[in-house]
Amino acid sequence: MRLITFRSAAGDRLGILLKNDRILDLQKARLIHASSGEGTPPSIFDSLTSLIEAGETGVAAARQLAAMAEVGELPDATGELSEALLLAPIPKPRKNVFCVGRNYVEHVNEGYRARGVETKLPEFPQFFTKPQTTIIGAGAPIPLHADVTEKLDYEVELGVIIGQRGTNITEAAALDHIFGFTIINDITARDLQRRHDQWFKGKALDGSCPIGPWVVLREKISNPQSLDITLRVNGEVRQQSNTARMIFSIARLISELSQGLTLEPGDIIATGTPSGVGYAMDPPNFLKAGDVVSCEIEGIGTLENRVN
Amino acid sequence: MRLITFRSAAGDRLGILLKNDRILDLQKARLIHASSGEGTPPSIFDSLTSLIEAGETGVAAARQLAAMAEVGELPDATGELSEALLLAPIPKPRKNVFCVGRNYVEHVNEGYRARGVETKLPEFPQFFTKPQTTIIGAGAPIPLHADVTEKLDYEVELGVIIGQRGTNITEAAALDHIFGFTIINDITARDLQRRHDQWFKGKALDGSCPIGPWVVLREKISNPQSLDITLRVNGEVRQQSNTARMIFSIARLISELSQGLTLEPGDIIATGTPSGVGYAMDPPNFLKAGDVVSCEIEGIGTLENRVN
Repeated sequence: MRLITFRSAAGDRLGILLKNDRILDLQKARLIHASSGEGTPPSIFDSLTSLIEAGETGVAAARQLAAMAEVGELPDATGELSEALLLAPIPKPRKNVFCVGRNYVEHVNEGYRARGVETKLPEFPQFFTKPQTTIIGAGAPIPLHADVTEKLDYEVELGVIIGQRGTNITEAAALDHIFGFTIINDITARDLQRRHDQWFKGKALDGSCPIGPWVVLREKISNPQSLDITLRVNGEVRQQSNTARMIFSIARLISELSQGLTLEPGDIIATGTPSGVGYAMDPPNFLKAGDVVSCEIEGIGTLENRVN
Repeated sequence: MRLITFRSAAGDRLGILLKNDRILDLQKARLIHASSGEGTPPSIFDSLTSLIEAGETGVAAARQLAAMAEVGELPDATGELSEALLLAPIPKPRKNVFCVGRNYVEHVNEGYRARGVETKLPEFPQFFTKPQTTIIGAGAPIPLHADVTEKLDYEVELGVIIGQRGTNITEAAALDHIFGFTIINDITARDLQRRHDQWFKGKALDGSCPIGPWVVLREKISNPQSLDITLRVNGEVRQQSNTARMIFSIARLISELSQGLTLEPGDIIATGTPSGVGYAMDPPNFLKAGDVVSCEIEGIGTLENRVN
């Protein structure tokens, strides 16, 4: 099941991407087929966050409606993907998007090489955040921000959506706290990242966090630590790796992050980027207006945005 | 006018602290005195964020009700401060709380001295964030988190509440974007701050961001760059300075932060802490269970919390 958030005339809606690129409006489907929602609160399909908070009940209700739509029922609640404006799956999360720096060995190496210093692998994950004003959906323009940065760069990352609230989560239990997976492009202004010392400022420009195009349920990804991850600029492969090459596993990241910090349903974690970023190329190769950036992760899909 | 958020049997409410430590429930007052809200949307007093978004209309309506309550009208909408549970003025901001590192010369010096390296003043502000799970109100316990940190420290800071949305705000216009001021205690786990390299993790423990006790309107503070700022632990003065000693002024901070990043009504900025933090004392002196931390800022008030 691929969960989407899209803009309709009636407002921002939660939906499911069906076969043949059709989409199902869950709120509308529920109204048409009221009985399928029996026992579930009417707000269950208000947003992806409310679906996640409803737990198994929410997913089961969505799955039932999707199954009906796939066989041609609920035609008034379905439409064409090509006619929908996709938003990020969770456009307004409760917390800034959690991000992880330096989590693939080759990316750590290229960073030190670009700055001419000896490589030292981190012993603990480096966390920073991106505010909700950075979040955009698939297909939305990435602002170039030429007035504030000359060094806009890309970073493809596997995105984790938290399902179950938790604090001090053990590594063994960590994957149970995941609702699903998505794709994140952690667009970064390298000059601001350096100038302000802490990474936040260079990571926080408006529109610098494309997320999507959808969320895939956790159980659809049999092993999240063996997914091919690729980024292309105008069709040219720039980043190509596999999530097996993470320094800190997804379970370790969730466990570390949650020490003394409560993770909540709908929280988003970007799990770090592999090597091949623009600033480490020789010569450096930053994004420019018109560039099309495509982020692809095995088992999830492709997140594509044009720089504007 | 001192704006508060408090918990009542009816839910979390926006209020005003009146003279003689009485409080006014704005939602209740509006219902009783419906005519005062004429022309204003009914949701205007839902929260401090909705009041801020209503702009001058909202403040004028609140002021009118407060004036009535001060002369004994609207008795059914007033109560005793001592009987109310104060929350942070904005318990769930849209974005993580923006914070600024190293913004008082003496604090920069003590940090370098504690680590035995030469002082270098920052040329640009260092920004990081605290998620909403850190936010607590005046009087709420600060969790010691003894299982994840041995070095919990305090940092009193002047808090700025953004009123007017803006991007690329000039220094000259910056103060016009402020709705009001409050007090923030940027509780920090020093060991986590170092271990995770980026400061976020050590700044993000649950309950590590006391904010309050209220918000004072901008116009009540004639010069926010000349306020005495003091922190006491169990009555002993640990930090004592004046906002005149900031390296980057409030206007400069807002301007820098807003470059390419849209500030929205209700966004919160902690503007950095003066010297006197526990980790720079000789020997270091961290918080322990039972410690009472009082943060006082001239013209605003005192924010007090006990470590638990």
